[in-house]
Amino acid sequence: MTDSRSIKTIVAALEGGNRSAVEIVRECIAAAERTNSSLRSFITVAADHALKQAGKSDARRRAGRVLGPLDGIPYAAKDMFETRGIRTTGGSRVLENNVPDTSAAAICMLDAAGAALIGKTNLHEFAYGATGENRWAGTVVNPHDETRLAGGSSSGSAAAVAAGIVPFALGTDTGGSVRVPAALCGIAGYKPSYGLISLDGVIPYCWSLDHAGVLATSVEDLELVVRHIAKLPPATQPSAALRVALVEGFEEKCEEPVQDAFLATKGHMRRLGAMFGAIELPDQSVARTVSLTIQLAETLTYHGPNRARARDRFGADMRGGMVLGQFLSAESYIQCKRMLGTYRRAFAQAMQMFDVLLTPACPIMAPQVGTVDVDIAGQTIPLGNALTLFTSFFNLVGAPALVLPVASPSGGLPVAVQIVGSPGSDSQLFGIALILENVCRACRS
Amino acid sequence: MTDSRSIKTIVAALEGGNRSAVEIVRECIAAAERTNSSLRSFITVAADHALKQAGKSDARRRAGRVLGPLDGIPYAAKDMFETRGIRTTGGSRVLENNVPDTSAAAICMLDAAGAALIGKTNLHEFAYGATGENRWAGTVVNPHDETRLAGGSSSGSAAAVAAGIVPFALGTDTGGSVRVPAALCGIAGYKPSYGLISLDGVIPYCWSLDHAGVLATSVEDLELVVRHIAKLPPATQPSAALRVALVEGFEEKCEEPVQDAFLATKGHMRRLGAMFGAIELPDQSVARTVSLTIQLAETLTYHGPNRARARDRFGADMRGGMVLGQFLSAESYIQCKRMLGTYRRAFAQAMQMFDVLLTPACPIMAPQVGTVDVDIAGQTIPLGNALTLFTSFFNLVGAPALVLPVASPSGGLPVAVQIVGSPGSDSQLFGIALILENVCRACRS
Repeated sequence: MTDSRSIKTIVAALEGGNRSAVEIVRECIAAAERTNSSLRSFITVAADHALKQAGKSDARRRAGRVLGPLDGIPYAAKDMFETRGIRTTGGSRVLENNVPDTSAAAICMLDAAGAALIGKTNLHEFAYGATGENRWAGTVVNPHDETRLAGGSSSGSAAAVAAGIVPFALGTDTGGSVRVPAALCGIAGYKPSYGLISLDGVIPYCWSLDHAGVLATSVEDLELVVRHIAKLPPATQPSAALRVALVEGFEEKCEEPVQDAFLATKGHMRRLGAMFGAIELPDQSVARTVSLTIQLAETLTYHGPNRARARDRFGADMRGGMVLGQFLSAESYIQCKRMLGTYRRAFAQAMQMFDVLLTPACPIMAPQVGTVDVDIAGQTIPLGNALTLFTSFFNLVGAPALVLPVASPSGGLPVAVQIVGSPGSDSQLFGIALILENVCRACRS
Repeated sequence: MTDSRSIKTIVAALEGGNRSAVEIVRECIAAAERTNSSLRSFITVAADHALKQAGKSDARRRAGRVLGPLDGIPYAAKDMFETRGIRTTGGSRVLENNVPDTSAAAICMLDAAGAALIGKTNLHEFAYGATGENRWAGTVVNPHDETRLAGGSSSGSAAAVAAGIVPFALGTDTGGSVRVPAALCGIAGYKPSYGLISLDGVIPYCWSLDHAGVLATSVEDLELVVRHIAKLPPATQPSAALRVALVEGFEEKCEEPVQDAFLATKGHMRRLGAMFGAIELPDQSVARTVSLTIQLAETLTYHGPNRARARDRFGADMRGGMVLGQFLSAESYIQCKRMLGTYRRAFAQAMQMFDVLLTPACPIMAPQVGTVDVDIAGQTIPLGNALTLFTSFFNLVGAPALVLPVASPSGGLPVAVQIVGSPGSDSQLFGIALILENVCRACRS
């Protein structure tokens, strides 16, 4: 479903002269429009804009002035990224008529690389939520099974890539909002080290924990895109045997197919010579409270003025979150902010002896639309908490993290693993992800 | 009173071989102990420690291995700076038995320069307050008139320098806590650009606004000390005519002798060729609320654990402040933190056309011990607010600021002016301060 739409495939078609950027972009737009009544992956399809960009790319190619490998490549951006002249809603009726004057830094960098923005993707309103449900813009469904959720908050970006509409998309990730939908939709998703990809011009959800990220069909494509929007040194691969950290107890919290796929992946890595060791993370239920406190306080502060002006235009999740946020004291917010330093030191220490941490990406596979709670290891917990169970801690520590689909022994819905590096080790993480991806591909074929 | 104790004078005595560091330090200790029953400038006199440091300095000098101009120079540090093996109380009974294992970075740097720490100076408890009143450690009084306050929170540092006990002292400044007591005691005081002097190992009061600073008898001495504890480029003096910003309305808020001295200083500067222009600052009463919100929220968070453990050991000001802090919401704290960015941009813009901003340091001269409220331009306001009226905004914007005594046409108690630079312009500020000091000296003599 996805490989035919990799960047590499499109580049080959453009370079071979078989296809023009305008033709390719026109197909993407048609696919976006054709699927949108069911998938709901786009809030805005920017057909004129995209065709104009593609036309310019074709002209450059004819003149022998191709800008690089992204020239003429179509992509989509989560509707949190401001785009000059193209409506940017944040997935909210509050901003339904918001047309920015300037574009986010990452969009500008992709413009400069010649990539063609097809449209703005759907999301959980203002990125507050991990299911991708959105009453105003419609709930994004999973291209693998349209009775199921795509995950969120970057739901539309994941669905658009997984459905083969675009080869890559931009997302944001505050507790797993790139990685969770990528995992549920069977594509690769990357959240960088804190601050590596600029958030300039991205609507904030929670600036202490927000990360801009990328979703694509392969690690190779992810890395190619990231090189154009961040200063990433060349990928390195650890020379000696890979030292892989594991967190005890994580796999027991997973549904059986996820557990099986995780164990199979470990087995593949062991056969490649990887060595495993256990690390401990701080109490994850406390860490979740720390994360939520910072999220609710910052998002209330940011959206407060709109709340006074247009309370009824917010969806139920945002309205509820902002009410909760009002009860938070300055003291508890500051305590939580101070915990980030403690967590960062603890994680750096735990990772000292390891190249990478391997975890399941998500304890469950894509849930049915309408799911409220799920059972995780005998406990009933809200769906959003379940989906971000293995991802949200790594926003607190600003560590780079990447999810990629792995072969599930039972087939069926996509299953993914997550690898996490120490903050700043993004290049090494890509190197390891490439190894892992090759192993997984070999096992699936 | 002060010039005989300048660093330069002491260096000359040491270099001439007339005096040993041990002799000088012994005199300082005697002066500290002799005056302490009335001045209350020291919480701890570290006689053994200081004599040991002085002995080592004398040995170095005999061996021809003098470390530099501060070798053997006595000094004092506000009791917020942690000192290895020397009790560090923060001016609070809560820490009355606290003996740290390590020293603050600034103390370590002065150690490395050979300076001899005489003792730890008194302060408003945990730096929360501008009067220097302290029921547990005793209230510091003004060496110029012992019925009057020295100002705070670095009350003991200012009094110890002004009384000639030490040539310089370290302080901290969150809303004026170095500059206000320096002004009331007739010495020079400097708060650097935010972060220029390390706060590592200093008990936090409010880390968003805290600045470490220095008090001394002259600008020359201030600069010499700062060169040893911060990376300061060489002092520069603007080549063309000095462009001096003024804030309209500030001088009308001053007592008559302060106003007269301020106008006289302006006159001296005009005769030197300075050009004046008006700038506007953001609403200063809103700015005061922003400052106080951040202060109360952060100090409550920092001291919260001790509050639970030892509530009765806190003084009345801290107890009251922490109660107020509990009522602050996360939203209002974050709003205030976000205002700092707005203020910084506004101040940078306002200062674009100017080399320096000139203001009175303090609207009043040293008040009587026990003063609660004062009348400022027809309004009755709490003493602490009055004292920091012209200083606290510059902590919000992280600008370097320096106060120095000027000649008062009416004689009597000390009067000072404040000069403020753009953040990062500390060297230029010292250059301008030297010019201003020379003018003022010439007028006094």
